[in-house]
Amino acid sequence: MGSQIDAVAACAGDAAVLPMTPGILAGMRVVEASAFVAAPSGGMTLAQMGAEVIRIDMPGGGLDYRRWPVTGDEYSLFWCGLNKGKRSVCIDFSIPEGRELAMAIITAPGEDAGMLLTNYAPRGWLSHEMLCAKRPDLIQLTIQGKRGGGNAVDYTVNPSVGIPLLTGPQAVDGPVNHVLPAWDLLTGQMAATGLLAAERHRRRTGEGQHIKLALEDVALATLGNLGFIAEAQRGHVRERVGNYLYGAFGCDFKCKDARVMIVALTHKQWTALCAALELSEAIAELERVSGLDLSLEGDRFRAREQIAALVHARVVDRSLSELGPRFDRLGVCWSRYQTVAELVEGDPACSVANPLFASTDQPGVGRILAPTIPLDFAAGGRLPPVTAPRLGEHTDAVLRTLVGLGDAAIEDLRARAIIGGG
Amino acid sequence: MGSQIDAVAACAGDAAVLPMTPGILAGMRVVEASAFVAAPSGGMTLAQMGAEVIRIDMPGGGLDYRRWPVTGDEYSLFWCGLNKGKRSVCIDFSIPEGRELAMAIITAPGEDAGMLLTNYAPRGWLSHEMLCAKRPDLIQLTIQGKRGGGNAVDYTVNPSVGIPLLTGPQAVDGPVNHVLPAWDLLTGQMAATGLLAAERHRRRTGEGQHIKLALEDVALATLGNLGFIAEAQRGHVRERVGNYLYGAFGCDFKCKDARVMIVALTHKQWTALCAALELSEAIAELERVSGLDLSLEGDRFRAREQIAALVHARVVDRSLSELGPRFDRLGVCWSRYQTVAELVEGDPACSVANPLFASTDQPGVGRILAPTIPLDFAAGGRLPPVTAPRLGEHTDAVLRTLVGLGDAAIEDLRARAIIGGG
Repeated sequence: MGSQIDAVAACAGDAAVLPMTPGILAGMRVVEASAFVAAPSGGMTLAQMGAEVIRIDMPGGGLDYRRWPVTGDEYSLFWCGLNKGKRSVCIDFSIPEGRELAMAIITAPGEDAGMLLTNYAPRGWLSHEMLCAKRPDLIQLTIQGKRGGGNAVDYTVNPSVGIPLLTGPQAVDGPVNHVLPAWDLLTGQMAATGLLAAERHRRRTGEGQHIKLALEDVALATLGNLGFIAEAQRGHVRERVGNYLYGAFGCDFKCKDARVMIVALTHKQWTALCAALELSEAIAELERVSGLDLSLEGDRFRAREQIAALVHARVVDRSLSELGPRFDRLGVCWSRYQTVAELVEGDPACSVANPLFASTDQPGVGRILAPTIPLDFAAGGRLPPVTAPRLGEHTDAVLRTLVGLGDAAIEDLRARAIIGGG
Repeated sequence: MGSQIDAVAACAGDAAVLPMTPGILAGMRVVEASAFVAAPSGGMTLAQMGAEVIRIDMPGGGLDYRRWPVTGDEYSLFWCGLNKGKRSVCIDFSIPEGRELAMAIITAPGEDAGMLLTNYAPRGWLSHEMLCAKRPDLIQLTIQGKRGGGNAVDYTVNPSVGIPLLTGPQAVDGPVNHVLPAWDLLTGQMAATGLLAAERHRRRTGEGQHIKLALEDVALATLGNLGFIAEAQRGHVRERVGNYLYGAFGCDFKCKDARVMIVALTHKQWTALCAALELSEAIAELERVSGLDLSLEGDRFRAREQIAALVHARVVDRSLSELGPRFDRLGVCWSRYQTVAELVEGDPACSVANPLFASTDQPGVGRILAPTIPLDFAAGGRLPPVTAPRLGEHTDAVLRTLVGLGDAAIEDLRARAIIGGG
C-alpha cells in the first residue's frame, strides 16, 4: 500500500514524471485505431498496465474527439478519460501515403509488438491480409457492432436484448434506457482479455491472428450467461420489478434524511438485516401467514413487498446517522444513494484517499481527479494515474522511432497536412 | 466460419463431445473459489478459451447455487449460465482436512497452473502467504466489494456512484436501479484480464503475485474514465435525461406497431437519419431559429426535444415494415425494442444461426440455447458452447489427478462427508 501512495504522491501534479515501476505489461506495444468507448477503454486498460498503446487518429481528431461531457472550450472530458496513458498520433489515413505510414506503425518490428485493436472495419489499411503481408504474426482484434459488421452501438444493442423493458418502475410506459454504456465497457474489457490471450498463444506458437468481437454478441452472451435466455425458452416471462433485486430481497428505502439501498441476497445479510431492524417477530409472523420460508432467497423475493413494508416502517423516521453505523456494526449490506456531485465532493472513496485516484494536470482541462486501473498488482506494480495526451502529441516521436523517418521527412509530411498534432 | 459451424453442429445435443480444437488457453489451470457473478464470469471467460477451470464449492453448493432464475425443480439457470465448461469439485472447506485438500488443488504443480480466482476473503485456506508456502509462484486474484474488504455488491455499489439518480424518466421520483449487474460483469472481465497479465509476467520473471480488485473501484474508475468525475469537479450538474442519449441525438420512438431506438451519434448517422425521414428542410429551419449547428453532436443534444418532435411526427404513423428497410438501406443507426421473449423466439441473432450459440443438453435443465465466448479467435479456435457441470461432478477425478488420492482415500472422504458430489 505504501509504495502506491508514494507513487501517487510523487505523480500528483506532474503528469510528466515517469512511473515508479514500468508496469506488468512493459514492453508490449499495441496500436489502436479506434473511437468511442469499447476499443479505447480496452486499449487504455492495457496502457494502464504498462503497455505502449499508440492511438492513431485523423488530424483534428476522430469521431469521438468532441464527445460530451466537454469543457467550456469544447475539450472532451470523455476523450481525456478514456485515453489516459496512450501515445497520440495524427495521420491522414484517408489518403494512400497516410495509410502506408499507419500500416508501418502497426507492423513495426518488436517481439511484443504487432498488435492492433480497432473498431473500424478491417478494410484497406486495416485489412488483416494486407497487414500480415508486412508482419505475418500480427494480432488484430476487430470490434464490430454486429457480427458480420452491421451498424450498432451500445445504445441500440441494449434495446434489442430486452433490458430496457425490464428496467424502472412498473408504472413507466415503455422502455428505460441505461445511462452507463455497459455493453461498450464489457466489450472493451473483453477485447483486452482477447488480446492478451492471443499474445500468449503467439508466444507459444509464433502465430498471430485476427480476432473478432461483436458488441451485440457480448450482450447476447451475457443474457445467456445470466439465465435470461433459458428462462424465456422455458416460457417464463420476466417482469419489471422496479428497484427490487430480482430473486432475493433488495430495495431502495427513504429514511428521514437520505435514500438507501438495502440488500439481503445471502442468508448472512438477511439475518443481519433482521437483527439491525429488530424484524424477527414480524418476519416469523409473515412466514406463518404466507407459508414461505424467508431464510430462502427465492421466498424473500416472493414476499418482497411485505418485507419492504416492514423495513420501510422501521427506517422512514430514522436518520442515516443512526441507521448507518448500526447497519455497519451488524453487517447489513447497504449503501446510500448519492448524486455524482455528492460522490465527488464528499465520498473518501472518490478522492486521493483511495489509491485508485490521483490529482493530475490534464492538458486542455486543468486539475482533475483521475483514476488508474482498479487492478492492484502486488508485483509488477500498479501504475499511478496519468493524463491523456494532447492530440497528435507523439506523432513525430513515433514516426522517428518506429518508421525511421528523419526530421526533414516529418516536416514535409506536416507541411502537406498528411500528419498533424505534435 | 465453416469450422465453427461444424464444431457447433457436432456438439449440438451432445455435451460430452470433445471440442474440435483445444482452445487458445489450453494447458492453463485456474482454481475458482467463488460465488455469484464477478468471479464466476471471469473464470468462465478463461474456461471458454480452453483453460481448465476448477470451481470449488461446499458440498450442496455455495451461496449462489439456488440463485434465480430457477427451474420448477429449483435448479438455477443463473448457476448453469455462469459456470459452463468448468470442473466442479465439492469439498467441505469449513474444516481443516477439507481446507488442506483445497489448498493442495490450488497449489498443484504445473507450469501453467497455480492460479487462483476468488471473491472470498484471502484468509485461512485462501491466505496468500499460506498458499505461497506450498507454491511460491502462485498467482491469486481476490475480488473484493470495497478495497480493504468491505461489504458491497453490485446493487449497492451502483447507488453510491450516482448512476441510478441519472437513470429513467425525469418524472420518476427517486432512483432507478439497473437490472443488469454491470459492475459485477465488468469486474469479472477485468479479473480475467488481470490473471492473464499476471501469468504473462510470471512466464517472463518466474514471479507470482496477489492481485486485488474491488468492485467499488471498478465503478469509480469507470465514472472517472467516462468523464463524470471531472465534469462534477468543474461544477456541472449532470441531469436526468430520460431515454435521450447524452451529448448527441438519440431517443426512443413509437412507430405504428413497434418501438424503436434511433441514434445519431456521428455525423454520418445524422445525415442518414435526415435523409431517411426527409428532415433536411425542417432541420435547416430549426438551425435558423435556434442558432445551433445540428451537424455538431453537442448541438443536436441541446436541440434534442425539437429534433425528437420532428422525428416523432415522421414515424408515429408508419409501420416497422416500412421504416426498418428504409433505415437499413440509408444507414440509420437504430434498433427495435424487444422483450427477452421476442428476442429468444424471433431474433435470428439469438439462435443457432448465430455461431455464438448452440443447443446444449444441460444436466438438471434439459435443452437450452447456450452461448460460447463472444471472442471469435481465428487461430486457436473458438470453442463451441458447452454445458455447466453437475455440482461436484469432478471431485473424484480432480482429487485423483491433482492430489494423487486413491479410490480408498476418496471413498473415505465421501463417507465422512468431507467431499460431495461426483
